[in-house]
Amino acid sequence: MPASCKTILASRVSASFRDQIKQDIKERNIRPKLVGFLANEDPAASKYAEWTAKTCAETGVEFELRKVDKNDLEEKITEANEDKSINGIMIYYPVYGGKQDLYLQSCVSTLKDVEGLCHKFVYNVYHNIRYVDDNETMKCIIPCTPLAIVKILEYIGVYNSVLPYGNRLYGRTITVVNRSEIVGRPLAALLANDGAKVFSVDVNGIQVFTRGTGIKLSAHKVEDVDLSVEEVVSQSDVVITGVPTPKYKLPTAYLKDGVIAINFSSFANFEDDVKTRASIFVPSVGKVTVAMLERNLLRLHDYQNNLTEKTV
Amino acid sequence: MPASCKTILASRVSASFRDQIKQDIKERNIRPKLVGFLANEDPAASKYAEWTAKTCAETGVEFELRKVDKNDLEEKITEANEDKSINGIMIYYPVYGGKQDLYLQSCVSTLKDVEGLCHKFVYNVYHNIRYVDDNETMKCIIPCTPLAIVKILEYIGVYNSVLPYGNRLYGRTITVVNRSEIVGRPLAALLANDGAKVFSVDVNGIQVFTRGTGIKLSAHKVEDVDLSVEEVVSQSDVVITGVPTPKYKLPTAYLKDGVIAINFSSFANFEDDVKTRASIFVPSVGKVTVAMLERNLLRLHDYQNNLTEKTV
Repeated sequence: MPASCKTILASRVSASFRDQIKQDIKERNIRPKLVGFLANEDPAASKYAEWTAKTCAETGVEFELRKVDKNDLEEKITEANEDKSINGIMIYYPVYGGKQDLYLQSCVSTLKDVEGLCHKFVYNVYHNIRYVDDNETMKCIIPCTPLAIVKILEYIGVYNSVLPYGNRLYGRTITVVNRSEIVGRPLAALLANDGAKVFSVDVNGIQVFTRGTGIKLSAHKVEDVDLSVEEVVSQSDVVITGVPTPKYKLPTAYLKDGVIAINFSSFANFEDDVKTRASIFVPSVGKVTVAMLERNLLRLHDYQNNLTEKTV
Repeated sequence: MPASCKTILASRVSASFRDQIKQDIKERNIRPKLVGFLANEDPAASKYAEWTAKTCAETGVEFELRKVDKNDLEEKITEANEDKSINGIMIYYPVYGGKQDLYLQSCVSTLKDVEGLCHKFVYNVYHNIRYVDDNETMKCIIPCTPLAIVKILEYIGVYNSVLPYGNRLYGRTITVVNRSEIVGRPLAALLANDGAKVFSVDVNGIQVFTRGTGIKLSAHKVEDVDLSVEEVVSQSDVVITGVPTPKYKLPTAYLKDGVIAINFSSFANFEDDVKTRASIFVPSVGKVTVAMLERNLLRLHDYQNNLTEKTV
C-alpha cells in the first residue's frame, strides 16, 4: 500500500466542541456575551472576526463586534471591563503591531480575558500553574490558539491518553516555527509542560524547551541550541508552523517520513508537496481557535457567576 | 549680550536627590537591598550597572549584581520575588530585545519593582492614577527614566510651580523622539497628564498627547497627526530625544531659538552645534535615573514594612 497523507480540517476538529458548547448553552438557558474589538484593517483579522460572529450565532453566544480607532481602544476596553452585561472581551491583533500590543493584552480584565493573553494567564502557562485559585476550583484560561493546537494534537492522537495527565507527550519531539508571545512561545511551553521535547524556531535562533526542574511544579526548561532548522525539523514527529508571511515555505525535504504537519499561519507555510512526506496534514486551525474562545467564554461566565467546577 | 547655552549635567541634578537619600538611610538606620539582573553583553547596560553599584555604595544601599543566563532569568526573578531580604529588583534591558522583554517586566513583583515597569505601574501612568491604594497612602512607582526626565524638567524650571500640582506644564509644547514602552510612551503620557501638549515621534508616525477627558481622572488623549518631524520640533519649547543608535541626529535647524534640549539615549542624538540654538542642553540623564531607582527602592522598602506616607 502506498504511503498516503490524511488531511484534517479544522472544521472537523471544531465540530464536536461547537456541538457541546451549543448544547451546554441551550440546556442551561444562558446567553453569554462576547465583545470583539477590531482596530485595524487587516484582512486576516476581519476574517477571524467573521468566523467568530458566525460560530457565536450558531452556538447561542451573543457576539458584538466593535470597530474602534486604535487610539481609543484602551479606553473602550476599560469601559467593557466595567460593563457587567459583557462576559468576555477579545481584541483582533495586530493593533499597533509592536510592544504596545502586549501592553494592551494585559488591559483586558482577567475575569473577561477569553483569549488568555493577559500577563497572569500567560505567566501561569510558563510556570505550569493550572488553576487560578489555591483550592483548584478554577482552571486557568489558556491562550486560545495554543490551546486549539493542543486540542488538535489530542484529536489526531499525538497526546497518548494511556500516559498520565500532564505527561502525555512524553517521547515526542515537536518543532514549532514561530516564537511569538501570543502563540509560539506559550505553545512550546505547554507542549514541554506535557512532556514533549520542543524545538522553538525563530529568526532570533533555535531554543529547546524540555520538562525541567523549575521551582513551580515541573515547569519547562529553555536552552539555546546550535542546530540548523533542517537538523531540528528532520528529527521531529510533529512540525507546527506559524510564520505570518506568504514568502515563508518550510522545505518538504527537511520533513521526516510520516511527520504530522500543522500550519497555524494565515498563509500556507508548507510547500505544495507536503503530503508526499506527512502522514497527517492540518492546513489551518482558525475554526478550532474560535471554538476555544467560546469554551473560555463559558468558563469565565461561570467564574463571574461564582459557578466553579466543584460547585456546578 | 550674545545668546548662550547652559549645559546641565545629570550629576548636578542627581546630587540633591542622592544627598537626601543618603541622609534618610543614615538617620533611619536602614539598609535597603537592591538586586540587579544582567543577562546581556550590552556595554550600555554594563555602564548602567556600574553606576548603580557606585551610587548605591555612596548612599548606603546594598546592591548585588547577579549575572545570569537569559534563559534562567525568569526563574531567578521569581526566587528574588520570594526572598524577603531583597527590597528591590531591576533588570538591565534588553534581554531578548523583543516582546518577551515586556513579559519579563511584569514578572517582577509589584512590591519590588523599582523600575516601575510592571503592567500595573505603567497602566497607572496611562490612566493618571497616582496612588496604589484607595486611601491614597501609597504613591505609585513611576517608571524611572521617565521620572528622571520629569525631575530634570522640574529642576530646570519647565514645570511652573506657580500653577497647581497636576497642571504645571500647561502651555508647554514638548516633542519626545522615541515611543518605546519603557520610556517614550509613558513619558509622553506623564507630561500630557501634567498639562503639556506632547508630540510623540517614532518610526511608526507622529502622535499628539494632550490632556483629555478620559474616564479616569483627567487622563491624556492620543491622536495621530499628519505633520513632519520638522513641523513638530520647530514649535516645541522642549525637545527630548532617545533614539538608541549613533546614526540618529536631530537637525539643529529644526529647533527653535531658546529651546530646551534633553537627550536620554546613550548616543548623542543632537548635532554638535545644538548649543547654537538651545538655551539649556542636558546631554544625558542616566545619573538621575539611578537616583530615581533608589528613591523608588526606599518607597517600596517602606511599603513592604507597612510604613506609608501617612503613617511615617
